[in-house]
Amino acid sequence: MALQSLRSLGFIIGIFLITLAVSMLIPMLTLVLFKHEGELSAFTWSCLITALAGLALTLPGRPKDSNLRPRDMYMLTSSSWVIVCLFAALPMVLIQHISYTDAFFETMSGVTTTGSTVLTNLDQASPGLLIWRSMLQWLGGIGFIGMAVAILPLLRVGGMRLFQTESSDWGEKVMPRSHMAAKYILAVYTALTVLGFLGLWAAGMSAFEAINHAMTAISTGGYSTSDASMAHWTQPAIHWIAVALMIAGSLPFTLYVASLRGNYKALLRDHQVRGLLGFLLASWLVVGAWLHLHSQLGWIDAIRVAAFNITSVVTTTGYALGDYTTWGSFAVLLFFYLTFVGGCSGSTAGGLKIFRFQVAFVLLRANLLRLVHPRAVIKQQYNGHNLDEDIVSAMITFSFFFAVTISLIAIGLTLTGLDWITALTGAATAVCNVGPGLGPIIGPAGNFATLSDSAKWLLTAGMLLGRLEILTVLVLFTRAFWKH
Amino acid sequence: MALQSLRSLGFIIGIFLITLAVSMLIPMLTLVLFKHEGELSAFTWSCLITALAGLALTLPGRPKDSNLRPRDMYMLTSSSWVIVCLFAALPMVLIQHISYTDAFFETMSGVTTTGSTVLTNLDQASPGLLIWRSMLQWLGGIGFIGMAVAILPLLRVGGMRLFQTESSDWGEKVMPRSHMAAKYILAVYTALTVLGFLGLWAAGMSAFEAINHAMTAISTGGYSTSDASMAHWTQPAIHWIAVALMIAGSLPFTLYVASLRGNYKALLRDHQVRGLLGFLLASWLVVGAWLHLHSQLGWIDAIRVAAFNITSVVTTTGYALGDYTTWGSFAVLLFFYLTFVGGCSGSTAGGLKIFRFQVAFVLLRANLLRLVHPRAVIKQQYNGHNLDEDIVSAMITFSFFFAVTISLIAIGLTLTGLDWITALTGAATAVCNVGPGLGPIIGPAGNFATLSDSAKWLLTAGMLLGRLEILTVLVLFTRAFWKH
Repeated sequence: MALQSLRSLGFIIGIFLITLAVSMLIPMLTLVLFKHEGELSAFTWSCLITALAGLALTLPGRPKDSNLRPRDMYMLTSSSWVIVCLFAALPMVLIQHISYTDAFFETMSGVTTTGSTVLTNLDQASPGLLIWRSMLQWLGGIGFIGMAVAILPLLRVGGMRLFQTESSDWGEKVMPRSHMAAKYILAVYTALTVLGFLGLWAAGMSAFEAINHAMTAISTGGYSTSDASMAHWTQPAIHWIAVALMIAGSLPFTLYVASLRGNYKALLRDHQVRGLLGFLLASWLVVGAWLHLHSQLGWIDAIRVAAFNITSVVTTTGYALGDYTTWGSFAVLLFFYLTFVGGCSGSTAGGLKIFRFQVAFVLLRANLLRLVHPRAVIKQQYNGHNLDEDIVSAMITFSFFFAVTISLIAIGLTLTGLDWITALTGAATAVCNVGPGLGPIIGPAGNFATLSDSAKWLLTAGMLLGRLEILTVLVLFTRAFWKH
Repeated sequence: MALQSLRSLGFIIGIFLITLAVSMLIPMLTLVLFKHEGELSAFTWSCLITALAGLALTLPGRPKDSNLRPRDMYMLTSSSWVIVCLFAALPMVLIQHISYTDAFFETMSGVTTTGSTVLTNLDQASPGLLIWRSMLQWLGGIGFIGMAVAILPLLRVGGMRLFQTESSDWGEKVMPRSHMAAKYILAVYTALTVLGFLGLWAAGMSAFEAINHAMTAISTGGYSTSDASMAHWTQPAIHWIAVALMIAGSLPFTLYVASLRGNYKALLRDHQVRGLLGFLLASWLVVGAWLHLHSQLGWIDAIRVAAFNITSVVTTTGYALGDYTTWGSFAVLLFFYLTFVGGCSGSTAGGLKIFRFQVAFVLLRANLLRLVHPRAVIKQQYNGHNLDEDIVSAMITFSFFFAVTISLIAIGLTLTGLDWITALTGAATAVCNVGPGLGPIIGPAGNFATLSDSAKWLLTAGMLLGRLEILTVLVLFTRAFWKH
């Protein structure tokens, strides 16, 4: 790797760290407002260390020839998430007196918008810590969407290439690469967060709770301010507003911008969006009916509870409203499947993403037709795009190695002594960036705190691999990457 | 469907039924040899009914224009397995006094070489019943391999087309379509069975036990004559001979024939064969080491027990030698994964099949290279074939719907009241044609007898779908298939 490239990477990561340090002012402000000044020093020190590291990296100045080559960008995508988490974990260690492993786990889980937690007694936790966790998810969410269009143009690099790496096999060309686009996306993201905050506040949350949940819902992150997660609030309106926010966070943000720019029907005409909404609605009804028939809940409550938990898992948010693992084996298995579905490409959601399932159905149809009419020329189209060989090949590769990654991490987890169900569902929930697994330990009513350190590091790696869509990281381990 | 086509189908299925009726003479002979004449009537009646049905179908004679169109062949592949099982189940009902559901389950499990059983007290069972079960697997195995090259040329139809449907996305062109090829394959299959019989007999099994296990090992079926499966015999030589037979049954039979015809290295040069053998060897060592470290077994015994169980699951045979679900969560999860691997295309084995994993790795390599060198032209080759769009697209479709099929059957099983682990692993073991699942009910030490009738029918459907590689059946449910 050329020195020039290293300097460019260092400069960008330095900017990230300075941003991180600046954002630590918000929990500090929160602590002052809540009169928790005793905990200020944790953030002061963290802020200082992070700012100094950032300054050290940016001080040499932006290199004159700051064009990043593709391989530099792969290095950047993978390393920046890790380095940001290394520093973002500092306040947790200092304020909560937890091990660095726990703090790094919690931070990576936040930044990747996974939402698995090792912390307990959240209801009594420092407001500074709570807002910091929520901010990590909010920043991680916008970072995930925005990276491609916001940071790289600063260095005169086209956003499409990085979008290709983060959403490795599908490039919506809706978005021209420009500062404007990035600003629009940030504006939409912020506006939705503010709307969510107002809604949750009006529906009965305290202002502080509403801010936190607006941030963790729109980012499909799932951190809560209560150990009981969303079951802490009984108002149906709160649950439905959260459902709306989670869905809003799992739709393609580029299409919001297209809608704002006058292409009003962009969102509603998109195959991905329609597929996701249709799938959610069907699942709500099926599971709602099941829940109504197998519990004391009336129709309306059953649909609400089912809709909340389904949306939470499918959008990879990970809030819990009760414990769906007590709903019988049909529901448990269904929620295990839902872990993999994911939201739309171009959103904050993780998972396999809904369009891959839709493309697979298009391919099935084409293949069945080919079996009946061997000589026919059959169009394979999705959302108006031809599914040419590259896209299909990239999709199969991604899906296959998604499964392989989950399988290997699960095997690693069994070697740390975990039972195989916790291992398998833990690996799946980490790589899909969802949050809860199955079983008594890490289920929706559980907590990751009791896991061993090695299990936590494995899960942390899984979250990062899932967030970077695996191939982005795998490419760093090829010989071709390191040649000349 | 034209009347002409129906008559052709009827004629072929009639021939199958007559073959089935004739093969019932063997259990009858067995009963006479073992002086169990009291049970003869069960087979006599079954034989008569089956023969009459076969004669009724063939009596109109072979239609003059007996060319089957592709769509007729799809009908034939799907319907012939079901109809054969309907009749092959008769002796079980009559001799064992079990319900027709149980008999059909046991028969389909035999014919598809799955090996899941609902029968208990096998050690005391009628020798006629035992040999019939083993024969179902043996016939099902050769039927699966040979159908494409043996039956259809009789009707002047090219074998490649059906091979295309049974091994839906990979056509080894080693095999010219001809009677000769079919006869060679049958000869190899029989020779291997005889060798296996001699080996098992010499190693300490009774002649009857050796015949049964030779048939169920070479067909990767897995039925045993003892409730304890292979743990009933303690001689290590028996276990190793069974391992060799299971592997022999999971290699491509077309390549045996190529070897016999002078292309001696055909087997050893084949990527699939190398991949399978390498994978097995590596798994033996890893699990053997694990077992040695976590049990009282010495190195040699640990490797033997590990090798036996791994080979049994990977080749989709399904014999058990002890209960690997007691080896700790690492082993349990690993065996769950191994369920999906499968043997080689062109063998009696089920599962995803090893070549699909190898092709996925070729695609991964190509995709990673493409990420580093976006403009490079990268060859995608496997075993000397170009992986063009059709192959890749068929592979992704198959794998995806393999997963969907397992998922849907598992969901169905939870609705019959099963716990989700039995449901998920039961669906997987059925569609992969392996045999045992996980959990206390259907694990390697368990039995499918206690499942509800609806669960049994679901699993039966899963076995058939897996055996026919799913798309062959799905195509019958498309509109295009039924047009004109």
